[in-house]
Amino acid sequence: MSEGWAFAGRPWPVVLSEGSVVLRPLRQRDARAWRAVRAANADWLAPWEATHPDVGVPPPTFNQMVRAFGREARAARMLPFAVDVDGDLVGQLTVSGIAWGSLRSGQIGYWVDRRMAGRGIIPTGVALAVDHCFFAMGLHRIEVNIRPENTASLRVVHKLGFRPEGLRRRYLHIDGAWRDHATFAITPEEVPEGMMSRWRRLAADLDAERSHAVPASPPDSSATHR
Amino acid sequence: MSEGWAFAGRPWPVVLSEGSVVLRPLRQRDARAWRAVRAANADWLAPWEATHPDVGVPPPTFNQMVRAFGREARAARMLPFAVDVDGDLVGQLTVSGIAWGSLRSGQIGYWVDRRMAGRGIIPTGVALAVDHCFFAMGLHRIEVNIRPENTASLRVVHKLGFRPEGLRRRYLHIDGAWRDHATFAITPEEVPEGMMSRWRRLAADLDAERSHAVPASPPDSSATHR
Repeated sequence: MSEGWAFAGRPWPVVLSEGSVVLRPLRQRDARAWRAVRAANADWLAPWEATHPDVGVPPPTFNQMVRAFGREARAARMLPFAVDVDGDLVGQLTVSGIAWGSLRSGQIGYWVDRRMAGRGIIPTGVALAVDHCFFAMGLHRIEVNIRPENTASLRVVHKLGFRPEGLRRRYLHIDGAWRDHATFAITPEEVPEGMMSRWRRLAADLDAERSHAVPASPPDSSATHR
Repeated sequence: MSEGWAFAGRPWPVVLSEGSVVLRPLRQRDARAWRAVRAANADWLAPWEATHPDVGVPPPTFNQMVRAFGREARAARMLPFAVDVDGDLVGQLTVSGIAWGSLRSGQIGYWVDRRMAGRGIIPTGVALAVDHCFFAMGLHRIEVNIRPENTASLRVVHKLGFRPEGLRRRYLHIDGAWRDHATFAITPEEVPEGMMSRWRRLAADLDAERSHAVPASPPDSSATHR
């Protein structure tokens, strides 16, 4: 029955920001900057990259991707954000698989330029997106699916308080094969004050700890893609 | 990235059958039969019925539902089947939330007329739909989400060999509130011979057992919705 109830408002475009981190629509004119940052991070991102299940099918071009993103976003099925820091494109954060009706759920995926890792950019972006999905759009569930090997990405969901929901076997075609993914989810009941206010408090605590610590350990990396 | 890859074939209409059980598109001309069987089962189905999360929003009319179904089916996002037995509409089986790209997943929901329960109609329909999704459409994952209280529905997925994946908290708005659901999933690697051939073998064994048993215990009910 649920399929007769769709989103009533205007779902897109959306711009969200917190400090120097901005989520805004990925656009055709980002092509050059996008290709440059992807090229600089190719080896690092490969183990987490979505691939086509059929042999020999190339990934869509940037232009094809952005066109499909716009169509899906206008239909309230996706929020395909570029992640900017101080005006530079440093990654992507996408809410996809948005379902309405009696489900009201979506999934978040992300990646960030390795050179920008460890600055809390992705946790900030996830918190912005979750609060928008819950409190502006009226979604009721956000899930994140992560390869168990992806420790940097696991740290993001742990920090933000997502709830582990178990393992999905051979769930997504990543880096050339069907890969198991650990699922994390959250509902608005679990963050009544919003995820960003929770993340702001935690980030302030982490900053305070760091300012009193001997600078020996590497910064906590939040650079991830699935 | 995955969103640039959609289904290439003609997804709909689809008719599938096994013995007297037929899955075929639900149509506007089913209105009278559909309303009659729903009215006869209203109390029985209520605890498993999808509801609108916002207070006071009525369910879509039958005509609205069928229109939305057709649109979604042509876009390869849904398979909205009517379940016929010997030519009579006795239930619905819907594959919804179909995702392509690097996911290739869908969810199955169903209900059947209480008076037809215990005849293996729903397991037969699920097996037909799963085999179509995997081996004709090329999906790679089917999940079924069931309220833990729904023992009849749990029996269906246990019989068919779905793999339990854990609990999703407050997952769907059912019978007026957000309800926990147990998730079950299966991938083609787990049913290389197809789900229908597995179900045929099991059904034959169950028939043989029954024909040798004292007819004291009630038949195994397979009448379910989520």
